[in-house]
Amino acid sequence: MDQSASPLATVVHQHAVFTDGLLLDCGVVLARLEVAYRTYGRLNAARSNAILVCHALTGDQYVAEPHPVTGKPGWWEAVVGPGRPIDTDRYFVICANVLGGCMGSTGPRSQRDDAPDGVLWGIDFPPVTIRDMVRAQKRLVEHLGIERLFAVVGGSMGGMQVLQWAATYPGHVFAAVPVATAAYHSAQNIAFNEVGRQAIFADPDWESGRYWDSGKIPARGLAVARMVAHITYLSEQALTRKFGRRLRGGASLSMFGDMFEVESYLQHQGSTFVNRFDANSYLTITRAMDYFDLVADSQGDLSAAFRDTPTRFCLISFTSDWLFPTAESRAVARALNRAAANVSFVEIASDKGHDAFLLDEPDFHRTLAGFLAGCAEHAGLPA
Amino acid sequence: MDQSASPLATVVHQHAVFTDGLLLDCGVVLARLEVAYRTYGRLNAARSNAILVCHALTGDQYVAEPHPVTGKPGWWEAVVGPGRPIDTDRYFVICANVLGGCMGSTGPRSQRDDAPDGVLWGIDFPPVTIRDMVRAQKRLVEHLGIERLFAVVGGSMGGMQVLQWAATYPGHVFAAVPVATAAYHSAQNIAFNEVGRQAIFADPDWESGRYWDSGKIPARGLAVARMVAHITYLSEQALTRKFGRRLRGGASLSMFGDMFEVESYLQHQGSTFVNRFDANSYLTITRAMDYFDLVADSQGDLSAAFRDTPTRFCLISFTSDWLFPTAESRAVARALNRAAANVSFVEIASDKGHDAFLLDEPDFHRTLAGFLAGCAEHAGLPA
Repeated sequence: MDQSASPLATVVHQHAVFTDGLLLDCGVVLARLEVAYRTYGRLNAARSNAILVCHALTGDQYVAEPHPVTGKPGWWEAVVGPGRPIDTDRYFVICANVLGGCMGSTGPRSQRDDAPDGVLWGIDFPPVTIRDMVRAQKRLVEHLGIERLFAVVGGSMGGMQVLQWAATYPGHVFAAVPVATAAYHSAQNIAFNEVGRQAIFADPDWESGRYWDSGKIPARGLAVARMVAHITYLSEQALTRKFGRRLRGGASLSMFGDMFEVESYLQHQGSTFVNRFDANSYLTITRAMDYFDLVADSQGDLSAAFRDTPTRFCLISFTSDWLFPTAESRAVARALNRAAANVSFVEIASDKGHDAFLLDEPDFHRTLAGFLAGCAEHAGLPA
Repeated sequence: MDQSASPLATVVHQHAVFTDGLLLDCGVVLARLEVAYRTYGRLNAARSNAILVCHALTGDQYVAEPHPVTGKPGWWEAVVGPGRPIDTDRYFVICANVLGGCMGSTGPRSQRDDAPDGVLWGIDFPPVTIRDMVRAQKRLVEHLGIERLFAVVGGSMGGMQVLQWAATYPGHVFAAVPVATAAYHSAQNIAFNEVGRQAIFADPDWESGRYWDSGKIPARGLAVARMVAHITYLSEQALTRKFGRRLRGGASLSMFGDMFEVESYLQHQGSTFVNRFDANSYLTITRAMDYFDLVADSQGDLSAAFRDTPTRFCLISFTSDWLFPTAESRAVARALNRAAANVSFVEIASDKGHDAFLLDEPDFHRTLAGFLAGCAEHAGLPA
C-alpha cells in the first residue's frame, strides 16, 4: 500500500497552527501544534453561544457532515444540526480532532519538530494525556476569539475531555455534559485496550511502528483491536437482537470462514476501520484514555477537582453500558455534590450498550436539549 | 522452535484407543480415536460410584495432580480429592481430555487416519461438536466397564458437556451438575471467540495453520486470544480488586512496555499459555463451543431435550459471571421444570466472575458436596 495515496495522507483538513509551543504532561514541548477542526452554525456577536463537542476514541471533527474519507454521514448527525438537541440554528458548534489523532491535528502522522522536512513522528510521537488534548482545544477556542464556552459536550473519551475541561478551566465552561464516561479508566477497560495494542504489535506489518517506511499498515492487528473494542461498545442484548446465533447463507459445520452473522459483522467493522484510522494514533489515544485518572490527579478526592466550580453539569449514562457503567457516572455526581456543584444526573434506559450515545435515543436527546435550553436561558442567550 | 522438543509433543498421556470408528456430526468418520484420561479414587464393586468431570476450553484431564507440562497443581484440586466436594475417598473420578484437545486425545496434533505415518491432522482436523466430545467420553466410560455414571460434573464448556450427556444418554447419568454454563453460546461469546481466532490468523507464524512445518507456533496471536478470553473470565470487580490502576515499579508516562499491573498480568497469562496449548486445538474447541445449541437441536423447545429424564440436576451459577450469566442457567432450569425433571438451581454470590467455579468458593463447594451426598443416599451408594 502506497501511503502517499492513502486518504489519511491526502485529505486536507481545515486547521489552525500554533508555533509558540505546547508543553505536554510528559515534559516534551511540541514546537508546532496543528489543530484540525470543523464548525457548524454562527458565533453570535457576544461570542457567548459556542459549544465544544469532544469526540471519542475513533471519532473526529466531522460531526455533522459527510466524512471526507468514508463518505458516511457525520458521527453525531442525530445530535448536532438545525433543530437537533445541539441546535446549530442557535449554537455555534466547534469540534477539533484530538491531539494524537490522524485527521489533521498534530499526531503520529505529523512531521517531526526536530527532524528534516518530511520525516513523520510515527512511533516516536510523545505520549499525550486527555489534559494535553484539552490544552490543544483551549488554544483553538482562544484562536476563535472565544473566552468562555457556553457548553462542552462529549461521550466516552469525549466525556473525559468534558470533565477535564471543567476541572482545568472552570471559569471558561458555563455548562458541561459528560456522557457515558468516568473519572478514570477502569482496570477492565485498560485490559481491553491492552488486548488491542498487543494485537497491533503482533501484526507482521507493524514493523515496530515504522510501517510507513515499507508502505504497509498493520491492518490485521488493527482490525482485531477494532473488533474487540466494538464488542465492548454493544450490549449483550444488542448483539443478540442484531445477530443472535444466525448463520450466514447455508453455512454448515466448517472450520474456517465466517459462519455466524456476528463474525461477519465484526470482520467488516475491523476491515473498514483500517482505511480510516492509523495504528500509531490508535496506540497514542488508547494510552491517553488509560492514563486518565482525575481522582488520582486530585489526590484521591475527586470533589477537590471541582471545588467552587461555577459550571453547571448534566451527567448522562445508559443502563446497558457495561464499558462505562452508570456507577461510574454516579461516582462523579457524588463528587460534584460534595463540591456543592450544580449537577443533574440522568440514567437513560437503553439496551444498546455504550453505543447508545451515538444512536437514536429520544430520551437522551430530550435530556440534552432540555438541559442546554435551561442553561441558555440562565446564561441570557437569545432564544 | 523445534516442535519435536515441545512438551506437547513429548509428554506421554494415559489413554485408551478405539479403532471401530467415530462418526462425527460433520459426517467425517475418525477411523482411530484416542481418549487420554486420568482417574482418581477407586471404582466400587457395583461400578456405581463413578463421576465424570468435564473440563473447560483450556483445561485438561489433570484435575487433581500436578500438570505434566507446567508442573502447576491440577485445575480443580479445590473440588476433587480426599475430603473435597467430589470426594475421591467415596467416588471414582474420571476426566478425559476433550476430542480436539492437545493433551493426548485425538485432535489436530494426532496423526491423520488417511495419510502416511507421521503426518499430523493440523489445520485439516475435522470440526467437532460438544456432542462429538461426549460421544468420545462415552466410549471411554464403556471401556472402563461403567454402564451408568453416578454423576457428570463440569463448568463452562464442561457444563455444556454435562447438559449434552444428560440429553444424549439420559439413562446413563444419575446426577448432572452443569456449572456456570448455558444451553447455547451467546452472540457475545461467539464474538469474543472470533476475536481470538482472528488474532491467531493475523500472526505471521500462523502460516495458514501449517505452522508445524516450519517449526514455529503463532505465539503472539494465541497469546492475544488468551488475553481477551481471560478478561471475560474475570469480573470488573475482580480485576479492580486485583490490579485497580496500579502502575508497575516507578512507571511514568511512556508509550510502550507494560505500564499498568493489569497489562503485565495479561501479557503473562498470554505468554505462558502458548507453551501448554496448541493453536489448532484452540480453534477447534472454540468452534465447538460456538456450535453448541441444545435449543436449536430441540427445535426451539429446550424442554424436549430432557423429556422424561430420570437424571437429577443441580444447576449452579455465579452472580458476577457475565460470560455465562445467571439468566442462562435460569433458562435451563425453566426448561427442566417444563420437562418435569428433578432440578435444583443455586446462584452463588461471588464477585470473582466466571472464574469463580475454579476458585475457593465455600458456598459453591458446600452446594456441590451436599447435592452429591443427597444423590448418593438416594442411589444407595455406601457412605
